[in-house]
Amino acid sequence: MKNMDNLDLMKSISIASPSKIVLLVIDGLGGLPRPETGRTELETAKKPNLDNLAAEGICGLSDPIGPGITPGSAPGHLALFGYDPVSYNIGRGVLEAVGVDFDLQPGDVAARGNFCTVDKSGMVTDRRAGRISTEKCAELCGLLDGKVIDGIEIIIRPVKEHRFIAVFRGEGLSEGVNDSDPQQTGVAPLVISALNREANRMADIGNQFVAQVKTSLTEHSPANMVLLRGFSKRPHLPSISEIYKLKPVAIAGYPMYRGLARLAGMEVLETEAGIEDEFKTLTKNYKDYDFFFLHVKATDSAGEDGDFDRKVAVIEEVDSLLPEITGLQPDVIVVTGDHSTPALLKGHSWHPVPLLLSSRWCRTDKASEFSESACVLGGLGRIPATQIMPLAMANALKLKKFGA
Amino acid sequence: MKNMDNLDLMKSISIASPSKIVLLVIDGLGGLPRPETGRTELETAKKPNLDNLAAEGICGLSDPIGPGITPGSAPGHLALFGYDPVSYNIGRGVLEAVGVDFDLQPGDVAARGNFCTVDKSGMVTDRRAGRISTEKCAELCGLLDGKVIDGIEIIIRPVKEHRFIAVFRGEGLSEGVNDSDPQQTGVAPLVISALNREANRMADIGNQFVAQVKTSLTEHSPANMVLLRGFSKRPHLPSISEIYKLKPVAIAGYPMYRGLARLAGMEVLETEAGIEDEFKTLTKNYKDYDFFFLHVKATDSAGEDGDFDRKVAVIEEVDSLLPEITGLQPDVIVVTGDHSTPALLKGHSWHPVPLLLSSRWCRTDKASEFSESACVLGGLGRIPATQIMPLAMANALKLKKFGA
Repeated sequence: MKNMDNLDLMKSISIASPSKIVLLVIDGLGGLPRPETGRTELETAKKPNLDNLAAEGICGLSDPIGPGITPGSAPGHLALFGYDPVSYNIGRGVLEAVGVDFDLQPGDVAARGNFCTVDKSGMVTDRRAGRISTEKCAELCGLLDGKVIDGIEIIIRPVKEHRFIAVFRGEGLSEGVNDSDPQQTGVAPLVISALNREANRMADIGNQFVAQVKTSLTEHSPANMVLLRGFSKRPHLPSISEIYKLKPVAIAGYPMYRGLARLAGMEVLETEAGIEDEFKTLTKNYKDYDFFFLHVKATDSAGEDGDFDRKVAVIEEVDSLLPEITGLQPDVIVVTGDHSTPALLKGHSWHPVPLLLSSRWCRTDKASEFSESACVLGGLGRIPATQIMPLAMANALKLKKFGA
Repeated sequence: MKNMDNLDLMKSISIASPSKIVLLVIDGLGGLPRPETGRTELETAKKPNLDNLAAEGICGLSDPIGPGITPGSAPGHLALFGYDPVSYNIGRGVLEAVGVDFDLQPGDVAARGNFCTVDKSGMVTDRRAGRISTEKCAELCGLLDGKVIDGIEIIIRPVKEHRFIAVFRGEGLSEGVNDSDPQQTGVAPLVISALNREANRMADIGNQFVAQVKTSLTEHSPANMVLLRGFSKRPHLPSISEIYKLKPVAIAGYPMYRGLARLAGMEVLETEAGIEDEFKTLTKNYKDYDFFFLHVKATDSAGEDGDFDRKVAVIEEVDSLLPEITGLQPDVIVVTGDHSTPALLKGHSWHPVPLLLSSRWCRTDKASEFSESACVLGGLGRIPATQIMPLAMANALKLKKFGA
């Protein structure tokens, strides 16, 4: 079954109902065993609540994109929401823009920006300008915001620390240009070049903008230059409510995940970034929605930092807060990740992601704990992540029979 | 994820690196249990080295084409190399031709030929002419080679025993014709017929050729007739190096597998057909390549002959030679087959194929031996064979992250 067909099929059999689904995404959940113990982060964590949920529910492993493919955060989440992550490839600029509540217009081209440090000869010495404070970033963005080049308005908004967005607004812009971010130090920022003839104007404006910025920032070392990447326009995604007839809401402390949820048509709740805050936000708003995407970022950050113990601790924190959710008795709880981030690899990886579904109507399996090794033998088997939404919908009794 | 996209995706995220991958294909590896013992060929074999590799690595089962589909050798191998075996269906004639180093030109139509025996009434009594010697085959091919019919040159080359290739070279030929091989005895060879209007010329030339051959071979019983099948033109496959940025090489004693590897753009090393010779060829050339396709044929031949014990013995021989490979410490070793060939069925079968991947970065599972039953519970689950290459690439750290 092709995935476009999948969404059409969902659209044709989904029904609105009072039942509620919680999708708890523990970012970068999957891991690799620490050689000394043979146990992964998830297998090391003390997590009685998740283990109980696994024992009563059904487990498995999911591939966000496919075996062997390491997903970025965006395709990882798109797959969890049921969209084919290869067909719907969303640019980084768009994600960052919608993640800071920026109202992208059709035709806008958004880029993700880093403030960076360059030396006297123009070589990048720090791609993150020493991770300047968010306040400093906002101040510099104020300085750069509002330039107009050849009729194109350039809007600059701070994101976090050294990161900002640049939105190019006006006629005749294309997203088909390369990054100026060389992704390494010791070299100059790249000239923005067009990937096709239609993108010549975007490349030209981009380069003029970077040149003006360089002048504006001369006195602001370490943030004396910018790097731009992920030039992109807002894509059209059919919305979660359109496909599944849900009233969906996202609770995520980290901008990119809020942005992604908005692209999928979810409402986004105000929340602090702490896990406890996120869980309380869900509780407080539980009566108003029937689909909750709850995103925990800190597992992924710990994995990226290679901090096995911190990742274990975050999982334990999530576990300790789980009764906040189970106490609400949602009809379906799904716990999984958008990809694996093994501390041993210090980055996202291709390993399939532990998956747990709890519902009155699931067919319980023998998995008595939530772990990679138990999930291997779980009743859900190994499935593409795009099949998680249909499973959640079915277990919430929100899907009609297909065919007579 | 559609498979055509899959190759494009691989192309976009593959990176060249010094890490090395060995793909050991034990042809027809999968089996069925002998009723007396309940153990398959693989489960009967004493194979401490493969069992160790399984214990340290990750196991699973692969479907070359799909559940229930029995693969020929060509689609089985195409899937292992990552090509959708249904989209890329390569004719048997082409495979045999490239397998004997024949330089097929665009427009050539190649057919696989058997010398066979017919009785006085023209009925086939032995489809293989008593498996005449390769020397005799070469002599007869010399007799038939070089005929020209209506401007079409017909080139005949010996393969092995009763087998040869016929290559039709000239203008206006099509591959759309049926075989003349009836695949059974007691009937006459079939008239070659066109499957579409464009193929009328090919059918006509083919039938004229067979008629001339019959006259030429009258005195050469038991090889007094030929059967032709698999009329086909060389297809375009994107090469392994183009898709995966690998420097690939094939080591295979049996012509068809060399031919297939060439179609996938691999270099082919000279080697004797013995398993030990093949392994030594790999060792000798290890520094010069980063992807090694090593093919063991004798398991399949034993399975086809219904010789359970011989298949067990071949697996044991492979196992005893395995330290030649593991001693080189490749970054990734994959051991699998192109399909199952259970001795009990005396032929290829649809049963999924045991699969073992060993790498520093694989997520080890509970499979402590390499067997069909252990693979059922392995961490790789049950995957299409086309996903083996992405997994090998990922475990060799040769794939970039997909998406932001």
